[in-house]
Order: sequence, then C-alpha cells, then structure tokens
Amino acid sequence: MKRLTGSVQQIAQELRREQLLRFEQANDVEKQVQAILEKVRQEGDEALIAYTNEFDGVTLTQLQVAEETIAEAFDRIEPAVLQALEAAKQNILSYHVHQVEEGFADFPSEGVIRGQRVLPLERVAIYVPGGTAAYPSSVLMNALPAKLAGVEEIIMLTPPPKNGVFNAAILVAAKLAGVDCVYQVGGAQSIAAAAYGTKSIPRVDKIVGPGNQYVATAKKQVFGQVGIDMIAGPSEVGVIADATANPVFVAADLLSQAEHDRHARAILVTTSSELADAVEEEVERQLRELPREAIARASIEANGRIILAASFDEMFDLMNEVAPEHLEIEVADALHYLGKVKHAGSVFLGRYTSEPIGDYFAGTNHVLPTSGTARFSSPLGVYDFVKRMQYTSYSQAATLAAAPHIKALAYKEALQGHAKAIEKREEEYENSKN
Amino acid sequence: MKRLTGSVQQIAQELRREQLLRFEQANDVEKQVQAILEKVRQEGDEALIAYTNEFDGVTLTQLQVAEETIAEAFDRIEPAVLQALEAAKQNILSYHVHQVEEGFADFPSEGVIRGQRVLPLERVAIYVPGGTAAYPSSVLMNALPAKLAGVEEIIMLTPPPKNGVFNAAILVAAKLAGVDCVYQVGGAQSIAAAAYGTKSIPRVDKIVGPGNQYVATAKKQVFGQVGIDMIAGPSEVGVIADATANPVFVAADLLSQAEHDRHARAILVTTSSELADAVEEEVERQLRELPREAIARASIEANGRIILAASFDEMFDLMNEVAPEHLEIEVADALHYLGKVKHAGSVFLGRYTSEPIGDYFAGTNHVLPTSGTARFSSPLGVYDFVKRMQYTSYSQAATLAAAPHIKALAYKEALQGHAKAIEKREEEYENSKN
Repeated sequence: MKRLTGSVQQIAQELRREQLLRFEQANDVEKQVQAILEKVRQEGDEALIAYTNEFDGVTLTQLQVAEETIAEAFDRIEPAVLQALEAAKQNILSYHVHQVEEGFADFPSEGVIRGQRVLPLERVAIYVPGGTAAYPSSVLMNALPAKLAGVEEIIMLTPPPKNGVFNAAILVAAKLAGVDCVYQVGGAQSIAAAAYGTKSIPRVDKIVGPGNQYVATAKKQVFGQVGIDMIAGPSEVGVIADATANPVFVAADLLSQAEHDRHARAILVTTSSELADAVEEEVERQLRELPREAIARASIEANGRIILAASFDEMFDLMNEVAPEHLEIEVADALHYLGKVKHAGSVFLGRYTSEPIGDYFAGTNHVLPTSGTARFSSPLGVYDFVKRMQYTSYSQAATLAAAPHIKALAYKEALQGHAKAIEKREEEYENSKN
Repeated sequence: MKRLTGSVQQIAQELRREQLLRFEQANDVEKQVQAILEKVRQEGDEALIAYTNEFDGVTLTQLQVAEETIAEAFDRIEPAVLQALEAAKQNILSYHVHQVEEGFADFPSEGVIRGQRVLPLERVAIYVPGGTAAYPSSVLMNALPAKLAGVEEIIMLTPPPKNGVFNAAILVAAKLAGVDCVYQVGGAQSIAAAAYGTKSIPRVDKIVGPGNQYVATAKKQVFGQVGIDMIAGPSEVGVIADATANPVFVAADLLSQAEHDRHARAILVTTSSELADAVEEEVERQLRELPREAIARASIEANGRIILAASFDEMFDLMNEVAPEHLEIEVADALHYLGKVKHAGSVFLGRYTSEPIGDYFAGTNHVLPTSGTARFSSPLGVYDFVKRMQYTSYSQAATLAAAPHIKALAYKEALQGHAKAIEKREEEYENSKN
C-alpha cells in the first residue's frame, strides 16, 4: 500500500486530487449511450430485443420474467441463503421505518393555511446487474426503502442469463422485497426503456441501483426526465485505528473492500506506526488467502493508502477530507468519537463492527455515496422514494392584507403581471363595496 | 391559446410529448461549457477574470463584492421593498422550520446500536442571475432553507453589473438571508469555480439557484462532483377551475406565469366551456395591459393550453399527467380536492390564492420542480441542505450471532473476503477460549 506523507494540508490535497480523478470518464461511452437511448426511444421493444441480442447474446421472446420462473427460484435457493435474506429483510425494514416521513400543516394566521404533503413516487425501477455483480443483498437494499415509502409499483431490470437460468437468490430477493415485475433487459437500453417507456416496459418516475459504466452513463443522461439515485463510483472504505486496534481485523476489512474491483479504495489512517506496519504485513498475508486475490491485490496496489497521523484530531481531519463511503473507527470507545466525523456514508464503530455486517445484515443501507460525495449526499433511504408537495390557501382578507408586500416585490422584479394578478383581487373587493 | 381535444388518454399523451420536448437542448452548448469548466479548473481565478471580460464585458480587479458595497445597498433600497423582503423572510423561516429533521438512534437488541445523523452541508453556493432575471425573492428562497439547515458558509455567485452598480435589492436580500460572501462572477465559469475551487472562491459541496442555459448545463456537468439542486426548466402553471371560478382571476394568474419567458407554459383545465371562453377573452384583454406583453403573448401562443374536461375526476387526471410546477385549484371548497393531486410542486387553493402569493410572500418555496419533474422531485427545502450519515455498532456477541447469515450471503455473492472479515472475529473468539 502506498504511504502518503507530508503536512495534513498536503495529504488532504493529494487525497482530493485522487478523488477527483475517479470521475474521469471516456467520452466515447457518452456517445454510444446517447445512440442507444435514442434508438430505444424511437423503436421501443424492438430496439430492446435487438440490443439484448447484440450485447448479451440472448434472443428474447418475452421481456417479462414469468411468475413461474420466480416461484421456481424458491425451490432452487439454498436454505441458509433464504434465511439470511429473510433476516436481512427484517433488519432493513426495522431500520428504515424510522425514515418514514409525515407532512405537516401550519395555520400561522387567520385565513392562511400552509402545508407540505409527503407522497410516494408512483413507479420505480431497480437496476440489478447480471453475472458476478448480481447481488441479492442489493435487491433488498434498493427495493425495501421504496416499499416502505409506499411506492405503488416497483419494477426490476436485469440482463438475461446467457444460459437461460436465473440466479435464484436474485429472484427470491426481488419477491421478498415486493418487486412487482422483473424484466430481463439490462444495460443502457434498459435505462432508456424505464425512462421513456416502451410497449412492454412502463415508464417510471425514478431509476435506482448500481450498474456498469454504460448503465451509469445512461442514468446520468436521462436524469431530469426521470429521477436517479446517484452516480455511483467505485467503492471505498476508510479505517481510523489507534494502537489498540487488531491488525488482523483491520487488514481483513480493508481487503473486503479491495476485493470488490480494482478501482476500489482502502485507506487506513492511524496514529500508530506499529499498527501501520502490522496491517501492511497482514494485508499481504491475507491477500494470499483470497479467491479474488488478483482483483484485491490490484486494488491495494493502485489505491490502497496508509497514512500516519500525528494525533487523534488529525486522523479525523484527514478522513473528513476523504469523506469515505464506509468508515470504520477501530479505537477504544469508538462511539465517543462519532461526533468528530463530518462526512461519511456509513460509520462502523468498534473492532467487531466489520463493514460486511452493514453490507448484509444490520439493516442500514449499503447503497452509499462514493468517491467523496458523502460531503453532500446520503445513503439510499426511504426519503429517496418520496417527493414533497407544498400547498397554500389564502382567504380574501389574508390576500388583501399581503397585497402591498407582494406588489412591492413584483414591481421591483419588473414582473407586473404578478402584481396585476393581486390587483384583480383588490379590484373585485373594491367593486363589491360599491 | 391552443385547445387540446380528444380522449383523456390522447390528451395525456400529447401533454407528455410536449413535456419531453422541453428537455431538448442544443449540443454545442454542452461542448462550450465543457471547455469553460476545464479552463477554470486549470487556470482558476485567471480564467474567471478572462471569461468575465469576454462574456460580461467587465474587467474585474477583485472577485469578492466588498462589505461596504453591501452595506451601502441598504441606503439605496426602497423602504417598501425592504419591508416586503423582511416580511417574506419571516414567512419563509416559519414555514421551512417544519422541515428541519432530527436523526435517530435505535437499540434493537443487546449489543446493537444503529442510527442516522442528519448533518448540514458545510459550504453551499447560490447562483443568482444578473440583469432582468435577478430576483431578490429568489435569493431568500435559496439561502434561508440552507441557513435553517445549519450550513456553515453560504456564498453567492452573480454576474457583475455592466455599469458597476449592483441591484441593491439583491445585495440586501443576500444580507438578510445570511449569505456570507458575494462573488461577482456568473455563467458557467462561476459554476466551475464553485465546483473545483479557485484561489479566491472556495470549493463548495452543493450549488443551487436558477440560471441560463450555460449555467444549467454547467450544473449538470459538475453534478456528481458537487451536489446540485435540480435542472430547472421553463416555468409552468396549471389551473383547475370549474364554473364557479372568476375568469378575470384565472386569466391574470395564467398571464403571471406566461410573462416569465416565452417558453413558460400556462394550462387551464376546466369542466366549464363558458369559463374556457371567458378566460380566453380575458387573456386577450389583459395581455394588452401588460408591460411584458410581447413575452407573455409569445408564451400563450406557443404553450398556452385550454382543455375542456368531462368531469372533476378528469380535470385532476389530466393535471396529474402534467405534474405542473404550480397548480391552482379554483373550485369551491378547493382544499377538499387536495387529495386528488398526485403530482405538483406547489398547490394554490381557492380563488384568492393567486400564485404570486407563493412567489413572494406565503413562505412556501418558489424554487419548484418544472416540466413534469414534480413526479419525482420536490420543492427546494431544508432537506436539500443536509445529508444523512448512518452508524452501526455491534458487540462481539452480536457479531458472532449474526455471523452465519453474513457468511451465507457473502459466499453466495462470491465475496469471500467479506466472509473472511467475519471469520477473523470468530477465530479470535475461538482462540480466546483456549
């Protein structure tokens, strides 16, 4: 792992620079995706079938996955996996239910009503990648908050399996999470279908879920016409550890991040040079135990970072610059330091709270802001599947009382039509007195 | 105004088609903006000064607007405008304070702590257009929710006035709203400065506020690296009115929208053909009273729509397809029908609740989702200036109890490193027993 040295400011600057580079993207993907979106918009299902043939090598006769296929997945799934999904589901529900919001109504003065309704989105699409990146846990993480929000219809988009046999756990997770309909279409073409609607696939209000570069680019391009969750980048973990931390645990947790893909990032900040050395050795030892060693090693070599901090404060200052997706705090009394964390998607406190607990079980969401976006964005939650609507009611008297202020601003902004709309109400009142 | 006829479905389809067209954008703007962003990223302040010279015709010696300039604006502002801004400020605060959110902590079982913190963004930029589109009311609408959220630093970006004299109301509104620093830079270059940071302008976490096509495109391009509020399109109003509505009021309110710009959209849906005719006549009559007649007329001719609905239900069904930014319900007992509205940014209930009340006074936000995006997005609010952070703490015992479920899913997803991170904790426990 690369060691960063220098002043806090220098290291912070270097970390930011690295962060920024993670957004660079080949420009030709943009153009390819644009063409795919346009074709699906024009030709609908026909384009979906053609692209699925071209990109996935599968000839579809129907886009929707049959109910029987989903039912049959329950016969195929391993019992331990089913139980784990059911346990995770309960925890996800019991955590996210706290995020369910109510609107408000406000009666500030006679004749004035103001309020805000919180309404579920009507229809949402969840994208689930195919192949080895198909994660049943992510199906739960994406769909259950939508369900709690009250979304009427949840559809799932996923590429068709090349051999015709779906990953049973994915279909089971979809069913457990209340997904209404599964479509076997993936890639940028599926995003286009959900954004514009086709004969078979209904237009949705929001598209969520991780995907490859084509999917991410397509989501970015349709953003505005439909909602999207976020532009997810490579995954990352930050670990803050002092001399009391167990280097075996720290190394294992860094590697559980690194094994995701070679762009994944694992950063350790510690006040202990002994720990830094021990973790580095452990990383090397444990790398050799990993089936995904090649990926994890590439990630550690390219993006692994160890930083020696001069103080506890410096550890937190540096990590706040990174704004990591996942943050582990492996120091004694970890909860006491939570207040020092300014930016992070999900924080794991104490040596036993290994990040995979959050990935699979605790019920907190594992769809998190990556690449420093935790500075301004949030884990996926119920709030992503609702929208707010304001409402106002003014009586005649309240309108007349407010008129001078409204007209002063309208005339100031040279929007005389706005002032006139109020004046028409004043004129009616004046006329009614005669 | 154009009349749309046909079945509800046909009209709905036509309205959707028109909605979609509103997103089309010239492609060359994308490229120009890309170049501007890149240059500011490379050259910082120097590029800002060069672009301001080129685009605004102003040679800047400093980017920051001096405190004295802001103080002096209080001497210049008309007393009625100052009072109106102060009244609006109080109403905006008393409405938006209901949106301030608390986090939660949850203790679902022994050894398990889960929670969510709600934290303000650290630094936010508010864009304020120059010239005739400089609206002091919008400064309040953008900055005050950020202030209530607890944002530490709010900066404002606005093009320099050609004659060197700032719009006093803009600077006063900024001061009233608690803006910390005003920079006299506008356009795509200012968005780049806020997204990347320059020597003079600090990098922010989120950029909000309306702007021209260049500003909107720049916001879209930096989205992901910083947060943005939304891609604001042209403004629109929908009016639902029955035979009891006053055609003078309806026409005035449609025109108060149409005067914004020629792309603005005003749509009336009514069950009364008498009202439809009367409104059309009134629109023509009132157009001639408007200083901005040319703009309003162009808007009404291109985008004005009158639709005759067969029933109350149909009025709401059609308007839900439009998902208008502003919706006026001018029927008797309007509040009784609020539940029928599924998609709208801000709803104005009853004949006296003219939309300008919301634009300038009521305290509800006037930064609203346009062009049908009310299907999935919300008015600007306090929630746009916070982010959530999850946290979890698991004791040793809780971790060991959860281990089988976590491992089942990790192995299923072929993320063995995730399973191993848990197994290291199990091994430690086993070893401690010996």
